[in-house]
Amino acid sequence: MEYNVIFQPSGRRGKVTGGKTILQASHDLGVDIESVCGASKVCGKCKVKIEEGYFQKFGIESRVSHLSPLTSQEEKYMESKEIKENYRFACATEIHGDILVFVPEESRGAQQIVLETGKERVFIIDPAVRKYYVELDPATLEDHRGDFERLCMGLRAKYPQLPENLAIDYFLLQKLPPVLRSEKWKVTVTIWQSREIINVEAGFNEKIVGVGIDIGTTTLAAYLCDLRTGKVLSKKSMMNPQVRYGEDVLSRISYAMMEDNGLEKMHNTIIESINILIGKMTAEVGLIPQDLQEVVLVFNTVMHHIALNIDPKFMGRSPFAPAIKHSLDIKARDLKIEVNPSANVHVLPIEAGFVGADNVAVLIAEEPYNQEEMRLIIDIGTNGEIDVGNKNQMLSTSCATGPALEGAQIKFGMRAAPGAIECIQIDTETLEPRYKVIGSDVWYPENRNPGAKGLCGSGIIDAIAELFKAGIIGTSGRFNGGMEAFPRVRKGADGKMEYVICWASETSIDQDISITISDVRAVQLAKSALYVGAKYLMEKLGIEKIDSVTLAGAFGSYINRESALLIGMFPDCNLERVTAVGNAAGDGAQIALLNKEKRVEADRVAREVYFVETAVESDFQKRFSDAMAFPHSHDLFPSIQHILDQIPKRGKRLTAR
Amino acid sequence: MEYNVIFQPSGRRGKVTGGKTILQASHDLGVDIESVCGASKVCGKCKVKIEEGYFQKFGIESRVSHLSPLTSQEEKYMESKEIKENYRFACATEIHGDILVFVPEESRGAQQIVLETGKERVFIIDPAVRKYYVELDPATLEDHRGDFERLCMGLRAKYPQLPENLAIDYFLLQKLPPVLRSEKWKVTVTIWQSREIINVEAGFNEKIVGVGIDIGTTTLAAYLCDLRTGKVLSKKSMMNPQVRYGEDVLSRISYAMMEDNGLEKMHNTIIESINILIGKMTAEVGLIPQDLQEVVLVFNTVMHHIALNIDPKFMGRSPFAPAIKHSLDIKARDLKIEVNPSANVHVLPIEAGFVGADNVAVLIAEEPYNQEEMRLIIDIGTNGEIDVGNKNQMLSTSCATGPALEGAQIKFGMRAAPGAIECIQIDTETLEPRYKVIGSDVWYPENRNPGAKGLCGSGIIDAIAELFKAGIIGTSGRFNGGMEAFPRVRKGADGKMEYVICWASETSIDQDISITISDVRAVQLAKSALYVGAKYLMEKLGIEKIDSVTLAGAFGSYINRESALLIGMFPDCNLERVTAVGNAAGDGAQIALLNKEKRVEADRVAREVYFVETAVESDFQKRFSDAMAFPHSHDLFPSIQHILDQIPKRGKRLTAR
Repeated sequence: MEYNVIFQPSGRRGKVTGGKTILQASHDLGVDIESVCGASKVCGKCKVKIEEGYFQKFGIESRVSHLSPLTSQEEKYMESKEIKENYRFACATEIHGDILVFVPEESRGAQQIVLETGKERVFIIDPAVRKYYVELDPATLEDHRGDFERLCMGLRAKYPQLPENLAIDYFLLQKLPPVLRSEKWKVTVTIWQSREIINVEAGFNEKIVGVGIDIGTTTLAAYLCDLRTGKVLSKKSMMNPQVRYGEDVLSRISYAMMEDNGLEKMHNTIIESINILIGKMTAEVGLIPQDLQEVVLVFNTVMHHIALNIDPKFMGRSPFAPAIKHSLDIKARDLKIEVNPSANVHVLPIEAGFVGADNVAVLIAEEPYNQEEMRLIIDIGTNGEIDVGNKNQMLSTSCATGPALEGAQIKFGMRAAPGAIECIQIDTETLEPRYKVIGSDVWYPENRNPGAKGLCGSGIIDAIAELFKAGIIGTSGRFNGGMEAFPRVRKGADGKMEYVICWASETSIDQDISITISDVRAVQLAKSALYVGAKYLMEKLGIEKIDSVTLAGAFGSYINRESALLIGMFPDCNLERVTAVGNAAGDGAQIALLNKEKRVEADRVAREVYFVETAVESDFQKRFSDAMAFPHSHDLFPSIQHILDQIPKRGKRLTAR
Repeated sequence: MEYNVIFQPSGRRGKVTGGKTILQASHDLGVDIESVCGASKVCGKCKVKIEEGYFQKFGIESRVSHLSPLTSQEEKYMESKEIKENYRFACATEIHGDILVFVPEESRGAQQIVLETGKERVFIIDPAVRKYYVELDPATLEDHRGDFERLCMGLRAKYPQLPENLAIDYFLLQKLPPVLRSEKWKVTVTIWQSREIINVEAGFNEKIVGVGIDIGTTTLAAYLCDLRTGKVLSKKSMMNPQVRYGEDVLSRISYAMMEDNGLEKMHNTIIESINILIGKMTAEVGLIPQDLQEVVLVFNTVMHHIALNIDPKFMGRSPFAPAIKHSLDIKARDLKIEVNPSANVHVLPIEAGFVGADNVAVLIAEEPYNQEEMRLIIDIGTNGEIDVGNKNQMLSTSCATGPALEGAQIKFGMRAAPGAIECIQIDTETLEPRYKVIGSDVWYPENRNPGAKGLCGSGIIDAIAELFKAGIIGTSGRFNGGMEAFPRVRKGADGKMEYVICWASETSIDQDISITISDVRAVQLAKSALYVGAKYLMEKLGIEKIDSVTLAGAFGSYINRESALLIGMFPDCNLERVTAVGNAAGDGAQIALLNKEKRVEADRVAREVYFVETAVESDFQKRFSDAMAFPHSHDLFPSIQHILDQIPKRGKRLTAR
């Protein structure tokens, strides 16, 4: 006998042979229902609601029953409310008549996930590691297969999509015999890339987690993700402790070359930090580090080499060839990363020179190579990466930005953490500031006691743009004269000019928080490097104007785009087409963790994006010094010309600068 | 233009386009010429002798010259004698006329190798690891490929048979950049299974070595092999130091279960021993352990688990299921075996129960599954393995032989080493012995001072067979009476009967060397186990008589087959069809090291051979006690009946036994 089965909301319908389960029918009709335990009736993930053809006998008499009766497993794992509402396990329910089935969102397989970070990013969850639940025949004198062979045959019988020649990690094999026997040969198996068994747990356990980590020159950002639902369970960041060995990538290379065991020290430091982050994040959600089944790492080329314990010295001299560009899968134990020792660490590919896996991560998150519009993407970090292009061609380059835009090497700079000033406005007449610190929604001076500790990247950019807009500093970055009446503009203890943002009493550090002429200079160096890099790429592509600007970086989502354009961080663009997307490299790490096809895309992109070496251009120095001015010494910025026109004229510059 | 080219001794001939090299011509015509450096003109392995069409101008005028002139590389790497005799590098010599080429044996590729151990074994050298020499384009600003990508592309260009997606071991990647640059981008690359790069050496280095190790319950035997020529460069054996934790496999399992860290201790001990053997062997031939590019291990099932640090406890109880049967490839570093850390350790598959990878190694060496005749193969060790069958079906079983046949648990037992008595004869009238020790060709008493130290396995079997043949011990193994006149038959210090083989003055240990009634009993237990196992398998196959017997084991090549049959170690067989083949398991380990196809065969054989569990048979105990007698309590031995008929009758057995 065949019956009519309709699945909602997809509307798929067809004839199904009587006696098949709803799950089997869903396969036949191309409907994707989640089945974490592989139809073992223990996970409850295939719950569906029967809209027609079945009614539970609670209070009312069963009118029709086109399904097999409720099983004890369903009664055990479902709440009575669900039972009353005609929910059934698709795997446990046989079809014996026409039915209409509604598949609730949480039961739909191959779910799309929206990454909730700086920008909404939608993609399919299809991670490289997956769990498979299986119940095996116990070993007997007549059936003395090896434990591994028994496991593989059991898996293949239940999951025919798995390949015949599954491998098992050697460290896991050591633990296999007791685990198989501890819950009567019922186990949950974790398999990497449908290829290698990397974990076996007694009984059923659907939880599967991994971590994506963005290793910046100055900052580490880590994301603990549920690999089944795609949810970020925890995120944490910390300073890269390698900062003590050098502020930027070139000084790290020098340290590796000049110091005994310099590479080893830096390598150990970064691995230790990764382990600390993993330890904190797992503890926060009631897990242990060994529960993690995969790690994805992104970084610039030099951090890549140091984190992988590869001597970066050849990266520091022409022709700057890296040891490897392709992505890598390394056993966690070989890197001494303390997750499941059989787990793999996936390293995204690097592009060239100093354009690393972090830029590839940005690209697979943003996908400019699939789009029509001509985009400029800037990943702001101590090592800045710039991409220009569209689906026809993508160019990239890197520039030594320095850590100023991350709050380092700035007198009162700090990470984007509670107490950091993240936005500032300066009144052009009174020169009095308004500002907001992270952790409060009320601005100073409304908030009389904001307890500021320092300035994070976005606050620094705002501060300098506002100083320029209020005429306190000029286009060259120097302080103008004629402001003796204003107490906030003063000579600091070192005799250099500064602007006081917070008086000591408004801080939690008992010092005046100011922005100094040195801070302005550091930001000029950074923004000039970014500007020049972007212009070179535009010229190589033969374009005069970009359609849109995307600002990525650890602080990127809070950045004020008008401030960024005012200081000339990038060439002119319609302000409405300038967007900040937060830590896109971190997003890319998570995407690669959650979708294995994006890894293949990453390797392709890394190969296809054309790397431009800008530092060797003969006019680099001249361009660089031209771009030091706010917003630029001669390039025009029509989008903000009306603001530039309103900047008040002040006195001559002070001799003391 | 095309020319006629003939290769000798194969006789292959054909037309070849002018300008091709002799090496290219050999490929076209299907002649296999060795080319270790891949036609880079540096290895000299493709030297051929030109028989017609070319003469060097030494003394005599060049009559014809159908070849390109001698190159500077040939002059550099060849001796002047070779040049005079018209040798050329096949890779360096272009064809410009008809030629007749002789390929000397040492230049022929895919060489057959004869393993010079107990038995001649002929097979093709085709190891899993191979070396590839390549000269790369240096990195430049215009060509900033990653080092790994540069290496892969260089390899693929020169060796198109390599796959596109070569991998590199992570630990090797760490060392790659400096090695590539140290000899101007000229490197020799070691690749495992045409899949993974596991070593890169600066410059050209054709030497490639590996080691095969047979880990017995009592003895380790290791073979250091040249993987290009197949030659055994060194072999060494030692006692298995795990003996201190238990004499046989069951007591080792107990130790692992009962002692804290028992498994770990035994595991560490075996790995340490492997490292000691490797250290000694490499030092002997001027290498270091890190030069070794592959390790092959064979062992019985329990030694397999302990060596791999897998708890053997489930092997010690019904249903005796092992953790894995399939072969394994494990990174040497993960096993802490101190060879190239990126090298792989190949573990041959195990069959079932206590029939391990060592038996699989014996089978791939002997190949009974390819033959018509019905064979019985006995691998004599502390854990004995028995195979019976032919190309239609193979059965196997294992038996607890005990270490007596390896010289352990025997009063004066020792390993087969210099000073060990390996053959004995006893005069049936005078009861005086003749014997020979390892390290001397002259028998006692002709050699008045042989300096004996003890008895090895073959000496023990000989001694007991001769005692039986001379009527000193009876069919039950007890000493007969009526020999008071013979000083060599006496009560020992412990009051038990013994036969003195050497007086203290003839030894180097200053003690009389004797064989005691306890020694006889230990050998009876061992031989009875082997006999019963063989009979069970024969009955399962429905056969009454085997066509041939093969005796394998550490001492197997020296064993006296008549002695072995006299004590009833195996069912009756024509003595001429009984052969001793030495350590066939060790041979199998070497064969798997030298030929990767034999590994595939090993996995197939391990699956297909049918394992018979004999200890569970209901009449096992009765059969075992019936087989304790010499040669057996009731089974007939027509092949040696004439010897049995001549055994002299002695007095009644002594009450003191």
